[in-house]
Amino acid sequence: MTPKSPLILITNDDGYQSRGLEQLVHIAQEFGDTVVMAPDRNSSGLSSSITCTRPLRVRAVPEKGDNYFSCDGTPADCVKMGLEHFCPRPPDLVLSGINYGSNASINILYSGTMGAVLEACLDGFPAIGFSVLSHSPETDFSACAPSVRHIISKTLEQPLPQGTALNVNIPRLPADQIKGIHICHQAHASWVDSLEKRTDPIGRPYWWMTGKFVCPNPNEQSDEYALAHGYVSVVPVRPDFTDYAAIDKIQHLSL
Amino acid sequence: MTPKSPLILITNDDGYQSRGLEQLVHIAQEFGDTVVMAPDRNSSGLSSSITCTRPLRVRAVPEKGDNYFSCDGTPADCVKMGLEHFCPRPPDLVLSGINYGSNASINILYSGTMGAVLEACLDGFPAIGFSVLSHSPETDFSACAPSVRHIISKTLEQPLPQGTALNVNIPRLPADQIKGIHICHQAHASWVDSLEKRTDPIGRPYWWMTGKFVCPNPNEQSDEYALAHGYVSVVPVRPDFTDYAAIDKIQHLSL
Repeated sequence: MTPKSPLILITNDDGYQSRGLEQLVHIAQEFGDTVVMAPDRNSSGLSSSITCTRPLRVRAVPEKGDNYFSCDGTPADCVKMGLEHFCPRPPDLVLSGINYGSNASINILYSGTMGAVLEACLDGFPAIGFSVLSHSPETDFSACAPSVRHIISKTLEQPLPQGTALNVNIPRLPADQIKGIHICHQAHASWVDSLEKRTDPIGRPYWWMTGKFVCPNPNEQSDEYALAHGYVSVVPVRPDFTDYAAIDKIQHLSL
Repeated sequence: MTPKSPLILITNDDGYQSRGLEQLVHIAQEFGDTVVMAPDRNSSGLSSSITCTRPLRVRAVPEKGDNYFSCDGTPADCVKMGLEHFCPRPPDLVLSGINYGSNASINILYSGTMGAVLEACLDGFPAIGFSVLSHSPETDFSACAPSVRHIISKTLEQPLPQGTALNVNIPRLPADQIKGIHICHQAHASWVDSLEKRTDPIGRPYWWMTGKFVCPNPNEQSDEYALAHGYVSVVPVRPDFTDYAAIDKIQHLSL
Protein backbone atom coordinates (compact mmCIF):
# COMPACT_ATOMS: atom_id res chain seq x y z
CA MET A 1 0.00 0.00 0.00
CA THR A 2 1.23 3.51 -0.74
CA PRO A 3 0.99 6.13 2.02
CA LYS A 4 -1.95 7.62 0.09
CA SER A 5 -3.97 4.43 0.22
CA PRO A 6 -7.48 5.06 1.59
CA LEU A 7 -7.96 4.26 5.27
CA ILE A 8 -11.17 2.45 6.18
CA LEU A 9 -12.42 2.05 9.76
CA ILE A 10 -14.70 -0.96 10.19
CA THR A 11 -17.06 -2.04 12.94
CA ASN A 12 -20.33 -3.94 13.40
CA ASP A 13 -22.79 -4.93 16.09
CA ASP A 14 -22.59 -8.71 15.86
CA GLY A 15 -19.15 -8.71 17.48
CA TYR A 16 -15.54 -8.98 16.33
CA GLN A 17 -15.82 -12.69 15.49
CA SER A 18 -18.74 -12.34 13.07
CA ARG A 19 -18.37 -13.83 9.60
CA GLY A 20 -20.18 -10.81 8.20
CA LEU A 21 -17.47 -8.54 9.57
CA GLU A 22 -14.81 -10.85 8.19
CA GLN A 23 -16.34 -10.60 4.72
CA LEU A 24 -16.56 -6.81 4.94
CA VAL A 25 -12.93 -6.48 6.06
CA HIS A 26 -11.87 -8.78 3.25
CA ILE A 27 -13.60 -6.58 0.66
CA ALA A 28 -12.41 -3.31 2.22
CA GLN A 29 -8.81 -4.47 2.04
CA GLU A 30 -9.11 -4.47 -1.76
CA PHE A 31 -9.49 -0.70 -1.51
CA GLY A 32 -7.03 0.38 1.17
CA ASP A 33 -5.73 0.00 4.70
CA THR A 34 -8.16 -1.06 7.41
CA VAL A 35 -8.57 -0.56 11.14
CA VAL A 36 -11.14 -2.83 12.78
CA MET A 37 -12.66 -1.85 16.13
CA ALA A 38 -15.62 -4.09 16.86
CA PRO A 39 -17.61 -4.98 19.99
CA ASP A 40 -16.30 -7.91 22.02
CA ARG A 41 -19.79 -9.50 22.05
CA ASN A 42 -23.10 -9.52 20.23
CA SER A 43 -24.36 -5.95 20.51
CA SER A 44 -27.51 -6.19 18.41
CA GLY A 45 -30.28 -3.79 19.32
CA LEU A 46 -27.94 -1.29 20.98
CA SER A 47 -28.96 1.56 18.67
CA SER A 48 -26.80 4.68 19.17
CA SER A 49 -26.18 3.91 22.82
CA ILE A 50 -22.91 4.97 24.43
CA THR A 51 -21.27 3.79 27.63
CA CYS A 52 -21.28 6.50 30.30
CA THR A 53 -21.24 4.55 33.55
CA ARG A 54 -18.02 2.51 33.32
CA PRO A 55 -14.69 2.82 31.52
CA LEU A 56 -13.94 1.04 28.26
CA ARG A 57 -11.18 -1.46 27.44
CA VAL A 58 -9.67 -2.43 24.10
CA ARG A 59 -7.95 -5.68 23.18
CA ALA A 60 -5.82 -6.38 20.11
CA VAL A 61 -6.89 -9.45 18.14
CA PRO A 62 -3.67 -10.36 16.29
CA GLU A 63 -5.05 -13.70 15.12
CA LYS A 64 -7.49 -11.70 12.98
CA GLY A 65 -4.82 -9.40 11.54
CA ASP A 66 -2.98 -6.15 12.15
CA ASN A 67 -4.97 -3.19 13.40
CA TYR A 68 -7.80 -5.46 14.47
CA PHE A 69 -9.28 -4.71 17.90
CA SER A 70 -12.22 -5.61 20.08
CA CYS A 71 -13.75 -3.20 22.59
CA ASP A 72 -16.12 -3.86 25.49
CA GLY A 73 -18.35 -0.93 24.49
CA THR A 74 -21.22 -0.38 22.11
CA PRO A 75 -20.90 -0.04 18.33
CA ALA A 76 -21.06 3.77 18.66
CA ASP A 77 -18.35 3.59 21.35
CA CYS A 78 -16.25 1.54 18.91
CA VAL A 79 -16.48 4.26 16.29
CA LYS A 80 -15.47 6.98 18.73
CA MET A 81 -12.62 4.79 19.99
CA GLY A 82 -11.40 3.93 16.51
CA LEU A 83 -11.54 7.51 15.27
CA GLU A 84 -9.96 9.12 18.31
CA HIS A 85 -7.37 6.61 19.42
CA PHE A 86 -6.66 3.83 16.91
CA CYS A 87 -6.78 5.26 13.38
CA PRO A 88 -3.30 6.44 12.35
CA ARG A 89 -4.93 9.17 10.23
CA PRO A 90 -8.51 10.32 9.64
CA PRO A 91 -10.28 7.55 7.75
CA ASP A 92 -11.64 8.05 4.24
CA LEU A 93 -14.60 5.84 4.99
CA VAL A 94 -16.28 4.14 7.96
CA LEU A 95 -18.05 0.83 7.36
CA SER A 96 -20.31 -1.24 9.58
CA GLY A 97 -21.58 -4.79 9.06
CA ILE A 98 -22.23 -6.97 7.25
CA ASN A 99 -25.11 -7.37 9.67
CA TYR A 100 -27.11 -10.56 10.15
CA GLY A 101 -30.68 -9.41 9.52
CA SER A 102 -32.47 -6.42 8.05
CA ASN A 103 -31.80 -2.87 9.14
CA ALA A 104 -34.25 -1.53 6.60
CA SER A 105 -37.30 0.55 7.49
CA ILE A 106 -37.65 1.34 11.19
CA ASN A 107 -35.15 -1.34 12.17
CA ILE A 108 -32.51 1.35 11.71
CA LEU A 109 -33.72 2.89 14.97
CA TYR A 110 -32.71 -0.14 17.05
CA SER A 111 -29.67 -1.18 15.06
CA GLY A 112 -26.22 -1.07 16.60
CA THR A 113 -24.78 -1.49 13.10
CA MET A 114 -26.50 1.71 12.02
CA GLY A 115 -25.81 3.35 15.39
CA ALA A 116 -22.14 3.06 14.47
CA VAL A 117 -22.81 4.58 11.04
CA LEU A 118 -24.77 7.50 12.48
CA GLU A 119 -21.96 8.11 14.99
CA ALA A 120 -19.38 8.29 12.21
CA CYS A 121 -21.69 10.59 10.28
CA LEU A 122 -22.04 12.94 13.26
CA ASP A 123 -18.28 12.95 13.57
CA GLY A 124 -18.02 14.16 9.95
CA PHE A 125 -16.99 10.96 8.17
CA PRO A 126 -18.57 9.24 5.18
CA ALA A 127 -20.10 6.03 6.46
CA ILE A 128 -22.01 3.03 5.18
CA GLY A 129 -23.84 0.25 6.99
CA PHE A 130 -24.38 -3.09 5.24
CA SER A 131 -26.94 -5.69 6.27
CA VAL A 132 -28.25 -8.87 4.68
CA LEU A 133 -31.78 -10.17 5.17
CA SER A 134 -30.74 -13.38 6.86
CA HIS A 135 -30.27 -14.41 10.47
CA SER A 136 -29.08 -17.89 9.54
CA PRO A 137 -25.67 -19.04 10.80
CA GLU A 138 -25.20 -20.39 7.25
CA THR A 139 -25.69 -16.96 5.68
CA ASP A 140 -23.73 -16.76 2.44
CA PHE A 141 -21.98 -13.42 2.83
CA SER A 142 -20.08 -13.97 -0.39
CA ALA A 143 -23.39 -13.39 -2.22
CA CYS A 144 -23.32 -9.85 -0.83
CA ALA A 145 -19.78 -9.21 -2.00
CA PRO A 146 -20.46 -7.79 -5.49
CA SER A 147 -22.98 -5.26 -4.15
CA VAL A 148 -20.76 -4.28 -1.23
CA ARG A 149 -17.71 -3.93 -3.48
CA HIS A 150 -19.62 -1.81 -5.99
CA ILE A 151 -20.99 0.60 -3.37
CA ILE A 152 -17.64 1.02 -1.60
CA SER A 153 -15.94 1.63 -4.94
CA LYS A 154 -18.44 4.30 -6.00
CA THR A 155 -18.36 6.15 -2.68
CA LEU A 156 -14.57 6.24 -2.64
CA GLU A 157 -14.59 7.61 -6.22
CA GLN A 158 -17.17 10.32 -5.58
CA PRO A 159 -17.80 11.57 -2.06
CA LEU A 160 -21.17 11.35 -0.37
CA PRO A 161 -22.85 14.67 0.40
CA GLN A 162 -21.42 16.11 3.64
CA GLY A 163 -23.42 14.78 6.59
CA THR A 164 -25.11 11.97 4.66
CA ALA A 165 -24.48 8.28 5.33
CA LEU A 166 -25.89 5.17 3.66
CA ASN A 167 -28.05 2.36 5.02
CA VAL A 168 -27.58 -0.55 2.61
CA ASN A 169 -29.71 -3.70 2.85
CA ILE A 170 -29.18 -6.73 0.66
CA PRO A 171 -31.81 -9.37 -0.14
CA ARG A 172 -31.11 -12.97 0.79
CA LEU A 173 -30.48 -14.12 -2.77
CA PRO A 174 -27.63 -15.60 -4.75
CA ALA A 175 -25.52 -12.79 -6.21
CA ASP A 176 -26.72 -13.46 -9.76
CA GLN A 177 -30.37 -13.12 -8.74
CA ILE A 178 -29.98 -9.65 -7.24
CA LYS A 179 -31.61 -7.34 -9.77
CA GLY A 180 -29.75 -4.12 -9.00
CA ILE A 181 -29.62 -1.27 -6.53
CA HIS A 182 -32.44 1.16 -5.66
CA ILE A 183 -32.01 4.44 -3.83
CA CYS A 184 -34.95 4.58 -1.42
CA HIS A 185 -36.51 6.18 1.61
CA GLN A 186 -37.09 4.37 4.88
CA ALA A 187 -40.43 2.49 4.81
CA HIS A 188 -43.10 3.20 7.38
CA ALA A 189 -43.66 0.10 9.47
CA SER A 190 -44.12 -1.11 13.01
CA TRP A 191 -43.39 -4.01 15.32
CA VAL A 192 -46.39 -5.50 17.11
CA ASP A 193 -46.65 -7.95 20.01
CA SER A 194 -43.10 -7.13 21.02
CA LEU A 195 -42.96 -8.74 24.44
CA GLU A 196 -43.99 -12.34 25.07
CA LYS A 197 -44.94 -13.14 28.65
CA ARG A 198 -43.77 -16.40 30.25
CA THR A 199 -43.71 -17.77 33.78
CA ASP A 200 -40.58 -19.05 35.50
CA PRO A 201 -40.47 -22.32 37.51
CA ILE A 202 -41.43 -20.54 40.72
CA GLY A 203 -44.39 -18.76 39.18
CA ARG A 204 -42.97 -15.30 38.52
CA PRO A 205 -43.53 -13.56 35.17
CA TYR A 206 -40.81 -12.56 32.73
CA TRP A 207 -40.92 -11.23 29.17
CA TRP A 208 -38.89 -11.93 26.01
CA MET A 209 -38.42 -9.41 23.21
CA THR A 210 -39.97 -10.83 20.07
CA GLY A 211 -42.61 -9.34 17.79
CA LYS A 212 -43.93 -9.26 14.26
CA PHE A 213 -42.70 -6.75 11.71
CA VAL A 214 -45.70 -5.15 10.00
CA CYS A 215 -45.25 -3.21 6.78
CA PRO A 216 -48.39 -3.45 4.67
CA ASN A 217 -48.21 -2.08 1.13
CA PRO A 218 -44.81 -0.43 1.29
CA ASN A 219 -44.44 2.65 -0.91
CA GLU A 220 -42.72 1.91 -4.23
CA GLN A 221 -39.89 4.28 -3.34
CA SER A 222 -39.27 2.57 0.00
CA ASP A 223 -36.53 0.19 1.04
CA GLU A 224 -38.99 -2.58 1.92
CA TYR A 225 -40.46 -2.46 -1.58
CA ALA A 226 -37.04 -2.63 -3.23
CA LEU A 227 -35.95 -5.56 -1.05
CA ALA A 228 -39.19 -7.46 -1.63
CA HIS A 229 -38.57 -7.14 -5.37
CA GLY A 230 -35.00 -8.44 -5.33
CA TYR A 231 -33.11 -5.14 -5.23
CA VAL A 232 -30.45 -3.90 -2.85
CA SER A 233 -31.87 -0.88 -0.99
CA VAL A 234 -29.71 2.18 -0.34
CA VAL A 235 -31.25 4.81 1.95
CA PRO A 236 -29.33 8.06 2.45
CA VAL A 237 -29.61 8.86 6.15
CA ARG A 238 -28.63 11.59 8.56
CA PRO A 239 -28.88 11.84 12.34
CA ASP A 240 -31.52 14.57 12.32
CA PHE A 241 -34.86 13.64 13.87
CA THR A 242 -36.52 16.98 13.16
CA ASP A 243 -39.93 16.59 11.55
CA TYR A 244 -39.55 19.71 9.39
CA ALA A 245 -43.04 19.41 7.91
CA ALA A 246 -44.48 19.46 11.42
CA ILE A 247 -42.82 22.73 12.45
CA ASP A 248 -45.64 24.69 10.81
CA LYS A 249 -48.30 22.12 11.67
CA ILE A 250 -47.79 22.41 15.42
CA GLN A 251 -48.13 26.19 15.49
CA HIS A 252 -51.84 25.55 16.16
CA LEU A 253 -50.91 24.24 19.58
CA SER A 254 -50.15 27.85 20.60
CA LEU A 255 -47.22 26.74 22.65
CA MET B 1 -61.33 10.30 37.99
CA THR B 2 -64.12 9.47 35.57
CA PRO B 3 -63.68 6.45 33.28
CA LYS B 4 -62.98 8.91 30.46
CA SER B 5 -60.06 10.51 32.23
CA PRO B 6 -56.97 10.60 29.98
CA LEU B 7 -54.45 7.84 30.57
CA ILE B 8 -50.79 8.88 30.57
CA LEU B 9 -47.90 6.40 30.43
CA ILE B 10 -44.69 7.80 31.91
CA THR B 11 -41.07 6.70 31.79
CA ASN B 12 -37.58 8.20 31.82
CA ASP B 13 -33.95 7.15 31.53
CA ASP B 14 -32.65 8.31 34.90
CA GLY B 15 -34.47 5.49 36.68
CA TYR B 16 -37.65 5.06 38.67
CA GLN B 17 -36.32 6.92 41.70
CA SER B 18 -35.44 10.12 39.86
CA ARG B 19 -36.82 13.38 41.21
CA GLY B 20 -37.40 14.51 37.64
CA LEU B 21 -39.73 11.58 37.07
CA GLU B 22 -41.49 12.30 40.36
CA GLN B 23 -42.14 15.88 39.24
CA LEU B 24 -43.45 14.73 35.85
CA VAL B 25 -45.80 12.17 37.43
CA HIS B 26 -47.05 14.80 39.84
CA ILE B 27 -47.92 17.16 36.97
CA ALA B 28 -49.40 14.41 34.80
CA GLN B 29 -51.76 13.40 37.60
CA GLU B 30 -53.41 16.81 37.30
CA PHE B 31 -54.58 15.70 33.84
CA GLY B 32 -55.56 12.07 34.23
CA ASP B 33 -54.64 8.59 35.34
CA THR B 34 -51.01 7.53 35.15
CA VAL B 35 -49.05 4.33 34.66
CA VAL B 36 -45.34 4.59 35.41
CA MET B 37 -42.93 2.06 33.92
CA ALA B 38 -39.37 3.27 34.42
CA PRO B 39 -35.93 1.63 34.30
CA ASP B 40 -34.71 0.15 37.58
CA ARG B 41 -31.39 1.99 37.22
CA ASN B 42 -29.75 4.96 35.52
CA SER B 43 -30.13 4.27 31.81
CA SER B 44 -28.68 7.45 30.37
CA GLY B 45 -27.12 7.14 26.94
CA LEU B 46 -29.12 4.05 26.00
CA SER B 47 -30.67 5.68 22.94
CA SER B 48 -33.36 3.49 21.32
CA SER B 49 -31.69 0.28 22.43
CA ILE B 50 -33.84 -2.76 23.21
CA THR B 51 -33.01 -5.89 25.17
CA CYS B 52 -32.79 -8.95 22.93
CA THR B 53 -30.40 -11.24 24.77
CA ARG B 54 -32.11 -11.81 28.12
CA PRO B 55 -35.68 -11.72 29.44
CA LEU B 56 -37.12 -8.72 31.24
CA ARG B 57 -38.59 -8.47 34.73
CA VAL B 58 -40.99 -5.93 36.21
CA ARG B 59 -41.41 -4.95 39.85
CA ALA B 60 -44.27 -2.98 41.40
CA VAL B 61 -43.14 0.01 43.46
CA PRO B 62 -46.14 0.53 45.79
CA GLU B 63 -44.27 3.04 47.95
CA LYS B 64 -44.33 5.37 44.93
CA GLY B 65 -48.02 4.87 44.20
CA ASP B 66 -50.48 2.68 42.33
CA ASN B 67 -49.57 1.60 38.82
CA TYR B 68 -45.94 2.49 39.41
CA PHE B 69 -43.43 -0.09 38.16
CA SER B 70 -39.72 -0.51 37.55
CA CYS B 71 -38.32 -2.71 34.78
CA ASP B 72 -34.80 -4.05 34.29
CA GLY B 73 -34.81 -3.07 30.61
CA THR B 74 -34.04 0.04 28.61
CA PRO B 75 -36.31 3.08 28.32
CA ALA B 76 -37.61 1.79 24.95
CA ASP B 77 -38.26 -1.61 26.57
CA CYS B 78 -40.21 0.19 29.30
CA VAL B 79 -42.48 1.82 26.72
CA LYS B 80 -43.16 -1.48 24.96
CA MET B 81 -43.80 -3.15 28.33
CA GLY B 82 -46.09 -0.39 29.55
CA LEU B 83 -48.09 -0.25 26.33
CA GLU B 84 -48.46 -3.99 25.83
CA HIS B 85 -48.83 -5.34 29.34
CA PHE B 86 -49.45 -2.68 32.01
CA CYS B 87 -51.71 0.03 30.59
CA PRO B 88 -55.37 -0.85 31.28
CA ARG B 89 -56.31 0.91 28.00
CA PRO B 90 -54.36 2.60 25.20
CA PRO B 91 -52.82 5.73 26.66
CA ASP B 92 -53.74 9.18 25.41
CA LEU B 93 -50.18 10.40 25.87
CA VAL B 94 -46.72 8.97 26.62
CA LEU B 95 -44.29 11.15 28.59
CA SER B 96 -40.60 10.73 29.33
CA GLY B 97 -38.42 12.67 31.77
CA ILE B 98 -37.93 15.14 33.26
CA ASN B 99 -34.36 14.34 32.27
CA TYR B 100 -31.27 15.65 34.05
CA GLY B 101 -29.33 17.37 31.26
CA SER B 102 -29.96 18.55 27.71
CA ASN B 103 -31.39 16.34 25.01
CA ALA B 104 -31.35 19.19 22.52
CA SER B 105 -29.45 19.09 19.24
CA ILE B 106 -27.67 15.82 18.52
CA ASN B 107 -27.99 14.69 22.12
CA ILE B 108 -31.34 13.25 21.10
CA LEU B 109 -29.44 10.50 19.27
CA TYR B 110 -27.91 9.11 22.48
CA SER B 111 -30.77 9.88 24.81
CA GLY B 112 -32.68 7.08 26.49
CA THR B 113 -35.35 9.61 27.45
CA MET B 114 -35.91 10.39 23.78
CA GLY B 115 -35.43 6.73 22.81
CA ALA B 116 -38.56 6.07 24.87
CA VAL B 117 -40.40 8.90 23.10
CA LEU B 118 -39.41 7.66 19.63
CA GLU B 119 -40.55 4.16 20.59
CA ALA B 120 -43.97 5.45 21.63
CA CYS B 121 -44.13 7.44 18.41
CA LEU B 122 -43.37 4.35 16.30
CA ASP B 123 -46.07 2.53 18.20
CA GLY B 124 -48.55 5.21 17.15
CA PHE B 125 -48.91 7.20 20.36
CA PRO B 126 -48.48 10.93 20.95
CA ALA B 127 -45.34 11.34 23.03
CA ILE B 128 -43.27 14.08 24.62
CA GLY B 129 -39.83 14.04 26.19
CA PHE B 130 -38.91 16.69 28.75
CA SER B 131 -35.35 17.59 29.77
CA VAL B 132 -33.83 20.39 31.82
CA LEU B 133 -30.36 21.79 31.19
CA SER B 134 -28.96 20.78 34.55
CA HIS B 135 -27.11 17.73 35.83
CA SER B 136 -27.04 19.02 39.40
CA PRO B 137 -28.50 16.80 42.14
CA GLU B 138 -30.06 20.06 43.41
CA THR B 139 -31.91 20.69 40.14
CA ASP B 140 -35.10 22.63 40.83
CA PHE B 141 -37.61 20.64 38.79
CA SER B 142 -40.45 22.80 40.10
CA ALA B 143 -39.07 25.60 37.91
CA CYS B 144 -39.90 23.38 34.90
CA ALA B 145 -43.45 22.75 36.07
CA PRO B 146 -45.25 25.67 34.38
CA SER B 147 -43.72 24.85 30.98
CA VAL B 148 -44.36 21.12 31.34
CA ARG B 149 -47.94 21.71 32.48
CA HIS B 150 -48.62 24.11 29.60
CA ILE B 151 -47.29 21.73 26.92
CA ILE B 152 -49.14 18.69 28.28
CA SER B 153 -52.34 20.71 28.49
CA LYS B 154 -52.05 21.93 24.88
CA THR B 155 -51.25 18.50 23.43
CA LEU B 156 -54.16 16.88 25.26
CA GLU B 157 -56.48 19.62 23.92
CA GLN B 158 -55.35 19.37 20.31
CA PRO B 159 -53.63 16.24 19.04
CA LEU B 160 -50.12 16.24 17.63
CA PRO B 161 -49.86 15.35 13.94
CA GLN B 162 -49.92 11.56 13.53
CA GLY B 163 -46.37 10.20 13.79
CA THR B 164 -44.88 13.34 15.31
CA ALA B 165 -43.50 13.52 18.85
CA LEU B 166 -41.97 16.42 20.78
CA ASN B 167 -38.48 16.91 22.19
CA VAL B 168 -38.81 19.60 24.86
CA ASN B 169 -35.77 21.14 26.53
CA ILE B 170 -36.00 23.66 29.34
CA PRO B 171 -33.30 26.19 30.30
CA ARG B 172 -31.87 26.08 33.80
CA LEU B 173 -33.63 29.21 34.96
CA PRO B 174 -36.18 30.16 37.62
CA ALA B 175 -39.68 29.78 36.16
CA ASP B 176 -40.26 33.54 36.01
CA GLN B 177 -37.10 34.07 33.94
CA ILE B 178 -38.11 31.66 31.16
CA LYS B 179 -39.09 33.90 28.26
CA GLY B 180 -41.46 31.56 26.44
CA ILE B 181 -41.52 28.59 24.11
CA HIS B 182 -39.95 28.33 20.65
CA ILE B 183 -40.72 25.64 18.07
CA CYS B 184 -37.36 24.74 16.58
CA HIS B 185 -35.32 22.32 14.52
CA GLN B 186 -32.50 20.21 15.93
CA ALA B 187 -29.21 22.20 15.90
CA HIS B 188 -26.19 20.89 14.04
CA ALA B 189 -23.43 20.16 16.53
CA SER B 190 -20.82 17.63 17.50
CA TRP B 191 -19.04 16.13 20.46
CA VAL B 192 -15.24 16.22 20.35
CA ASP B 193 -12.59 14.49 22.44
CA SER B 194 -15.13 11.92 23.51
CA LEU B 195 -12.86 9.34 25.15
CA GLU B 196 -10.28 10.22 27.76
CA LYS B 197 -7.44 7.74 28.13
CA ARG B 198 -6.18 6.78 31.58
CA THR B 199 -3.89 4.10 32.92
CA ASP B 200 -4.87 1.66 35.66
CA PRO B 201 -2.61 0.77 38.64
CA ILE B 202 -1.02 -2.10 36.73
CA GLY B 203 -0.26 -0.04 33.64
CA ARG B 204 -3.12 -1.00 31.33
CA PRO B 205 -5.09 1.64 29.43
CA TYR B 206 -8.78 2.36 29.81
CA TRP B 207 -11.04 5.09 28.47
CA TRP B 208 -13.85 7.19 29.96
CA MET B 209 -16.66 8.72 27.90
CA THR B 210 -16.43 12.47 28.23
CA GLY B 211 -16.17 15.14 25.54
CA LYS B 212 -16.98 18.72 24.70
CA PHE B 213 -20.21 19.71 23.04
CA VAL B 214 -19.44 22.01 20.10
CA CYS B 215 -22.20 24.07 18.51
CA PRO B 216 -20.75 27.27 17.09
CA ASN B 217 -23.23 29.91 15.85
CA PRO B 218 -26.42 27.88 16.10
CA ASN B 219 -29.06 28.78 13.55
CA GLU B 220 -31.73 31.16 14.93
CA GLN B 221 -34.42 28.54 14.31
CA SER B 222 -32.52 25.85 16.23
CA ASP B 223 -33.10 24.47 19.69
CA GLU B 224 -29.64 25.49 20.90
CA TYR B 225 -30.31 29.12 19.94
CA ALA B 226 -33.66 29.16 21.73
CA LEU B 227 -32.19 27.63 24.88
CA ALA B 228 -29.22 30.01 24.89
CA HIS B 229 -31.68 32.91 24.78
CA GLY B 230 -33.82 31.75 27.69
CA TYR B 231 -36.61 29.97 25.79
CA VAL B 232 -37.96 26.45 26.13
CA SER B 233 -37.21 24.60 22.87
CA VAL B 234 -39.80 22.30 21.31
CA VAL B 235 -38.58 20.22 18.36
CA PRO B 236 -41.15 18.10 16.51
CA VAL B 237 -39.43 14.79 15.82
CA ARG B 238 -40.12 11.52 14.04
CA PRO B 239 -38.14 8.29 13.82
CA ASP B 240 -37.27 8.66 10.13
CA PHE B 241 -33.58 8.97 9.35
CA THR B 242 -34.07 9.34 5.59
CA ASP B 243 -32.10 12.26 4.17
CA TYR B 244 -34.76 13.11 1.59
CA ALA B 245 -32.72 15.93 0.06
CA ALA B 246 -29.90 13.48 -0.60
CA ILE B 247 -32.02 11.00 -2.56
CA ASP B 248 -31.49 13.05 -5.71
CA LYS B 249 -27.96 14.11 -4.78
CA ILE B 250 -26.62 10.58 -4.63
CA GLN B 251 -27.87 9.62 -8.07
CA HIS B 252 -24.43 10.76 -9.33
CA LEU B 253 -22.91 7.75 -7.61
CA SER B 254 -24.48 5.57 -10.32
CA LEU B 255 -25.27 2.88 -7.83
